Amino acid sequence: MKLKARLPGLTSGGKMIVILNNKTAKKLAVKPLERVIVKSKKEDITCIVNTSEKIVKPREIIIYDDVNDILKIKNGDIVDVRARPFLNSKKFIRERIRGKELTNKKIRQIVDDVLEHKLSDLALASLISSFDIRPLSDSEAYGFTKAMIDTSEKFTFRGKIVDKHSIGGIPGDKTSILLVSIVAAAGLTIPKSSSRAITDPAGTADRFEIFAPVQLDARAIRRTVKKTGGCIIWGGSFKLAPADDLFIQIEHPLDSDAMMIPSIIAKKKVMGSKYIILDMPMGPTQAKIKDMSVASKLARKFIKIGKRFGMKIECAVTNASQPLGYSMGPALEARDILNTFSNSKSKDLIDKATSLSGILFKMVGKDYSAEEGKARAVKIFNSGLAEKKFREIIKEQGGNEKVTIGDIRVGKETRIVKAKKSGYIHNIHNKNLVRTAIAAGCPGDKGAGIELFKKIGDKISHGEPLFKIYAENKIKMKNALDAYEDSFIIKSRRPKKTKMLLKVVV
Amino acid sequence: MKLKARLPGLTSGGKMIVILNNKTAKKLAVKPLERVIVKSKKEDITCIVNTSEKIVKPREIIIYDDVNDILKIKNGDIVDVRARPFLNSKKFIRERIRGKELTNKKIRQIVDDVLEHKLSDLALASLISSFDIRPLSDSEAYGFTKAMIDTSEKFTFRGKIVDKHSIGGIPGDKTSILLVSIVAAAGLTIPKSSSRAITDPAGTADRFEIFAPVQLDARAIRRTVKKTGGCIIWGGSFKLAPADDLFIQIEHPLDSDAMMIPSIIAKKKVMGSKYIILDMPMGPTQAKIKDMSVASKLARKFIKIGKRFGMKIECAVTNASQPLGYSMGPALEARDILNTFSNSKSKDLIDKATSLSGILFKMVGKDYSAEEGKARAVKIFNSGLAEKKFREIIKEQGGNEKVTIGDIRVGKETRIVKAKKSGYIHNIHNKNLVRTAIAAGCPGDKGAGIELFKKIGDKISHGEPLFKIYAENKIKMKNALDAYEDSFIIKSRRPKKTKMLLKVVV
Repeated sequence: MKLKARLPGLTSGGKMIVILNNKTAKKLAVKPLERVIVKSKKEDITCIVNTSEKIVKPREIIIYDDVNDILKIKNGDIVDVRARPFLNSKKFIRERIRGKELTNKKIRQIVDDVLEHKLSDLALASLISSFDIRPLSDSEAYGFTKAMIDTSEKFTFRGKIVDKHSIGGIPGDKTSILLVSIVAAAGLTIPKSSSRAITDPAGTADRFEIFAPVQLDARAIRRTVKKTGGCIIWGGSFKLAPADDLFIQIEHPLDSDAMMIPSIIAKKKVMGSKYIILDMPMGPTQAKIKDMSVASKLARKFIKIGKRFGMKIECAVTNASQPLGYSMGPALEARDILNTFSNSKSKDLIDKATSLSGILFKMVGKDYSAEEGKARAVKIFNSGLAEKKFREIIKEQGGNEKVTIGDIRVGKETRIVKAKKSGYIHNIHNKNLVRTAIAAGCPGDKGAGIELFKKIGDKISHGEPLFKIYAENKIKMKNALDAYEDSFIIKSRRPKKTKMLLKVVV
Repeated sequence: MKLKARLPGLTSGGKMIVILNNKTAKKLAVKPLERVIVKSKKEDITCIVNTSEKIVKPREIIIYDDVNDILKIKNGDIVDVRARPFLNSKKFIRERIRGKELTNKKIRQIVDDVLEHKLSDLALASLISSFDIRPLSDSEAYGFTKAMIDTSEKFTFRGKIVDKHSIGGIPGDKTSILLVSIVAAAGLTIPKSSSRAITDPAGTADRFEIFAPVQLDARAIRRTVKKTGGCIIWGGSFKLAPADDLFIQIEHPLDSDAMMIPSIIAKKKVMGSKYIILDMPMGPTQAKIKDMSVASKLARKFIKIGKRFGMKIECAVTNASQPLGYSMGPALEARDILNTFSNSKSKDLIDKATSLSGILFKMVGKDYSAEEGKARAVKIFNSGLAEKKFREIIKEQGGNEKVTIGDIRVGKETRIVKAKKSGYIHNIHNKNLVRTAIAAGCPGDKGAGIELFKKIGDKISHGEPLFKIYAENKIKMKNALDAYEDSFIIKSRRPKKTKMLLKVVV
């Protein structure tokens, strides 16, 4: 049925919705919540039907901007609208729920249908939950990775192409931004695609976005990497494994990382990366990895699947017993990064970034051990070359390379939380702090978050400030204070010192 | 924030949506897909935020009819809108996904949040999927049943209150409508609440709705039962375990029946039923029960949970090797019911309805065996008393008690499918037929469905009509023909006869 499109600037936040007049819906034999296929000259897309008696005429269709981001039509254009036929991929999902492994062919059908927005969010939530409960088999992980790569644009860069990725779970992890600066300063090519936060107050893409745009087109990505040797872009940019981003849209609200392996490997493969250091933060709360045996098992799975795509992966198990550096939340962490380049205060952050850089130097060269690599990384960091490279990348990606701490805006609403006793800090409950930061508005509200004044091993007196909460408005500050539970264990003895790199699985 | 409500007659099909101007959303610190609480004088409800630059002004809010069915405000009324605070129930769902059993207290919190539309569909889909994969424990089944009962209106009727329910899975199951007529004609009280179809072409509520309204208010339910001894209403009527209906809204598109036990027991308990015959259709395809050991296990669980609520449950395992009677789909089945009362053609249907009625007679009385009960049921059926009662109930519920087959409209689009060989029908693939009927528009399109000409044991010649597909429009007829796969196994020998009642678990 031909209908005239109206585009009143409606946004659903990613749901593909159209509004039909009740009479039109009846003619098409569809009801609210059912699906229609809307076809423009170039694209067709499956949309959820809403209906109205009044705001849309029988010969019209109201199209959400979320739909038109793909459809790309103009107000008043004519589109063809029809009811959606039966979907096989829905059946495959149901089979997976009932315990059947997905074949590569079925996976490809699911991924194709996801890319065409044919599957409902409910069906996808059910698929993701089935992976949460009965994790992806090796064959399924391979299948999803391959389907994500095959349906993606691909990059080809020159030189030794390396990358680093963290599976997440340590709040305040600014390592990637430092590591890209160090590694690119050393002459390697590191076209880093990063994720936005899923279960943390900020992801690398959220952090770097404070300095420069992270959503670049293919040309800008090529130019930045060619000129600086590195980049820090959002993995959802352009068409980098676009299926992955659609899965993440479902995983995010479900607080799931069930598709971690395909997601990470596909995003790296399409950038042409060959040597990957994978960071696996291990800690008692918030970290995805609670003990070494789980870490080793997951590492072996990554290494195995990576190998099938011609990639060399090493996995570093790192200390996640407290937030990294002194901050959580995009803007606060951006400030922390500038601080670290200038005064080296965040020792744990520098230790981690140079250790992982060192492993990459070892992986690509024959001349280095990981320890020698680390020494080289420390030298590059201390010499100021890393900061210089960091600012070069900011400039190439379109940011202000002369940015200072004062340029970065943080939340206006603040509240300081003080110590309830004196002594040394022995433990920090990451999960409580993360929950507080998220209630304060992270990662959506860039200026929200937590600034730590003290970390494990520090001495503190009763009534002395422990940390400060930032929020962009009073409602979210109240939410944060409601969510906060005591997160600091303070004892009279000084705790033992710990290092950042715990083990490397190769 | 006070906003002026606009009600342009928008329907989403059950999603609670409001549209805010972008500026208003920013002031409230919410983004599309996030939630706000909209408060009228009497009610407050959590809604999904959509935004628009144009169709809504900054001081206005567009409210979907789905929301206003609960809010009940008028166009131009002022509502109070605020961002939604952090939800604990989301955390409980995540814990369940990770393997933790839900406590009664957590279940009650989830049910409360579901009733207040606070939880997202994604979160609920994930919860339901976790029950699909790791089924409800006894304690969880009890917890959900109790929470559903405690948050429901309750009925109190006089006399021996009995009920019948099928767990579903045999297409064309018209048993309940016959059984209520027989049992009420015998003087028992049977306030039957029925479901709409979840995985079948029609549910009892869908079928009976062809004869009379099934969505009654409390007064009409009381009046009907008082006057006739029975009723056949939709379980979602009034406020009968309303949480159950919200779960069903998610289970339905996921093709799940994970919450079957709480759903059925709660719906029966709030009607005051004490003696329940539970039908468990068993068959090779479509039926939920594939073998006797699964049936016995499920039956024992029902009996156990029912006992904790003071209910006596017996479970009948019945033959589901082919559709019951000669029809699938609401209107076609309604015609079939009228036919069965007048000419007794559907022998399997009569056999089943009288067997289950007989068990109920045995359960409430000391004088009957199940066999004697069945004989009594057959007598009531053959005497015409059951049909008389059936028409009394139709009248009381507001239908036309003089309805004839000619009054019932079926789909205009029809197509006959013929036999590909000659012989006796040995097997019918229910699942394929159900898929076809659903593709044809069942259960939403009342006139859609399948009419069978032949059943197991019948002789057929090559080219003779096997069945007829009905659809309300050409698109869905095409979908049905696309979905159909050969569903009849025809052999030269005559197959053995089978009976309907296979086993009773008490």
